Amino acid sequence: MATASLIEYEDASPEVRAVYDDIMQTREVDWINNFWKALANHPPTLRRTWESIKEVMAPGHIDPLTKEMLYIAVSITNHCRYCIHSHTAAARRAGMTDGMLGELIAVVGMANETNRLVEGYQVEVDEVFLANPDTPSA
Amino acid sequence: MATASLIEYEDASPEVRAVYDDIMQTREVDWINNFWKALANHPPTLRRTWESIKEVMAPGHIDPLTKEMLYIAVSITNHCRYCIHSHTAAARRAGMTDGMLGELIAVVGMANETNRLVEGYQVEVDEVFLANPDTPSA
Amino acid sequence: MATASLIEYEDASPEVRAVYDDIMQTREVDWINNFWKALANHPPTLRRTWESIKEVMAPGHIDPLTKEMLYIAVSITNHCRYCIHSHTAAARRAGMTDGMLGELIAVVGMANETNRLVEGYQVEVDEVFLANPDTPSA
Amino acid sequence: MATASLIEYEDASPEVRAVYDDIMQTREVDWINNFWKALANHPPTLRRTWESIKEVMAPGHIDPLTKEMLYIAVSITNHCRYCIHSHTAAARRAGMTDGMLGELIAVVGMANETNRLVEGYQVEVDEVFLANPDTPSA
Amino acid sequence: MATASLIEYEDASPEVRAVYDDIMQTREVDWINNFWKALANHPPTLRRTWESIKEVMAPGHIDPLTKEMLYIAVSITNHCRYCIHSHTAAARRAGMTDGMLGELIAVVGMANETNRLVEGYQVEVDEVFLANPDTPSA
Amino acid sequence: MATASLIEYEDASPEVRAVYDDIMQTREVDWINNFWKALANHPPTLRRTWESIKEVMAPGHIDPLTKEMLYIAVSITNHCRYCIHSHTAAARRAGMTDGMLGELIAVVGMANETNRLVEGYQVEVDEVFLANPDTPSA
Repeated sequence: MATASLIEYEDASPEVRAVYDDIMQTREVDWINNFWKALANHPPTLRRTWESIKEVMAPGHIDPLTKEMLYIAVSITNHCRYCIHSHTAAARRAGMTDGMLGELIAVVGMANETNRLVEGYQVEVDEVFLANPDTPSA
Repeated sequence: MATASLIEYEDASPEVRAVYDDIMQTREVDWINNFWKALANHPPTLRRTWESIKEVMAPGHIDPLTKEMLYIAVSITNHCRYCIHSHTAAARRAGMTDGMLGELIAVVGMANETNRLVEGYQVEVDEVFLANPDTPSA
Repeated sequence: MATASLIEYEDASPEVRAVYDDIMQTREVDWINNFWKALANHPPTLRRTWESIKEVMAPGHIDPLTKEMLYIAVSITNHCRYCIHSHTAAARRAGMTDGMLGELIAVVGMANETNRLVEGYQVEVDEVFLANPDTPSA
Repeated sequence: MATASLIEYEDASPEVRAVYDDIMQTREVDWINNFWKALANHPPTLRRTWESIKEVMAPGHIDPLTKEMLYIAVSITNHCRYCIHSHTAAARRAGMTDGMLGELIAVVGMANETNRLVEGYQVEVDEVFLANPDTPSA
Repeated sequence: MATASLIEYEDASPEVRAVYDDIMQTREVDWINNFWKALANHPPTLRRTWESIKEVMAPGHIDPLTKEMLYIAVSITNHCRYCIHSHTAAARRAGMTDGMLGELIAVVGMANETNRLVEGYQVEVDEVFLANPDTPSA
Repeated sequence: MATASLIEYEDASPEVRAVYDDIMQTREVDWINNFWKALANHPPTLRRTWESIKEVMAPGHIDPLTKEMLYIAVSITNHCRYCIHSHTAAARRAGMTDGMLGELIAVVGMANETNRLVEGYQVEVDEVFLANPDTPSA
């Protein structure tokens, strides 16, 4: 149960409908998932979030599938159940195979382990990693 | 300052040196970074972690650069300063450009925002995302 | 399902009942929510937590409604489902409107995004923020 | 040391300078703090983040000081050192007193404790909290 | 609902069955819990994780019950519901009493509170704690 | 640099000095570490936190050394640098050896890995773990 109602298309204001329409058109789907229906309780957040997502997830220097996998990695680390399910579905649509998902989860698990080994030993950053942040030779 | 000393190669036991040698050979480098020198305080953890990292980060269904970027995404979300620096350096060596780093950080920031919007509204997972976890059509 | 039973009033020891009575009287309600019934499995934690909550959430330099909203901000960031629901209910009783909840969640989402942008770029604290922590001119 | 250089005004592109100018004018300050100088490495993120922050932190149903305190609460919970320092300074400028800061930190600490007590006992949400999310009587 | 199917013994490959058999023999149980059935979707992760768990949780300088309680402390802090349930069950089998569980949760709650008080005040580490990390007199 | 000044004994109010005296007497030390000097900016938080810590960390069903190790496990998971240093020092005073510290960090690292494997696969809790939370046979 959400802390607010889900706003269906037929109950939505024109401002909300315009965002819903753009989501469906951009993603080439004919339905709206619960995330957006919940955000619609605060239309400025709905609009701003959709515009940001659309811009950030667009193809660029990183391809859309890799971006979806990065999204899953963050969502697993934050244990956001909804986000894991919705972005796993999106990544599969973008071509993620079972083998890729298995490796993605393994990397995320491993990174969480070594992140804590670093904390436990309070490892200091090597000078060489700090010396020249802009060059690939770092 | 670490909670334990860093173990240098010349002070290391044969067991630890064997791992250090494998790290340098596998990565084609001639030095050991602080992470491994700290883990060497507990040789079983040093060995087990290196063997796991070597296996998990090897090329497979996901290429090594994407794996490094997933590692950075987790480390940012966990705010592990050492890990961000060391894996950013590794990703740059593997070909990550400034443009890719900029987009990676943007995706990580965005994912952290929407993860919390989901929590704030307590959005329930759409049935369609749950229905058929094994198929790309989900 | 909890990892321990919920202790109902009629099954509670006099020590636990005394805390339950104080909760109901202080909050002017006639029931005990599950949080306290779970803590009652360890009466010292029940007593200590209630006394702390009563002191910390009392009106002071910050009003009770703002304190409830701070509580929600923390609970969203920690993704504590129970806490989000119980403190959203408490905040609504204290006067939080739908518009306020919408903005609160927007701020929490935004803060989580920028927190990770800071991590990603490993931004150093400006000297001016450190120079004079006690003065409003900082 | 950041993972990327800080972009100073004199080295910035016109696109970045336009954002810097708007930040200084909106906040009525004559300098740019490190956060924006780091984001300037990825101009789309700089622009998008500033526009979002400007919108989200503007006066609305919640006043700017309370919004800054919510930001601090999240940043403490995420242990983002930069964010704690910069938003504490901003909150002091907006009128936060020492007494208010003391109580704010007390609430954040308390909320983090009870969030984990809830986890430890795996407390289920009371039906009444779920029944009617939209009404203040919940 | 998991993001992948659970692999039952009768449907498992010989490689997976070998791990299942070792789990049941090592733990002296006659069933496999869901965690391993999920990992079996990626056999290298199943094998690697089981071998690591078997090594890390074995009796050593710290006894198995204390190790299980450390596991619970981490899982509560990460709010991993599955992990809290499974390791609470394991700790009870290893001798954890209700009184011990009550104190464990109290310590975890308290640590989460003081961790955030430290963040809120940005407390610097005392020199004496840094001076001599290897000696008990620190 | 803290967000507030550290209050030294000679500058402290009688209320704060009374807590400082009790800390030194209870712990049989002759100095006050920075944590308490920072909390002294808000005397009610100083008093309440000290009283809680004193009660929670006292010998009970769990011995003080194990409690300190649980504290470290939480602090590593929360990456609270101050807390890791101060509680590692306290645990060493209480008898923690290098071998124990090595195993503790290994368990914490492992638990953080498996917590995320659980999230990645969204593993559901086995019925048997939920059936009978109060009995050791669970």
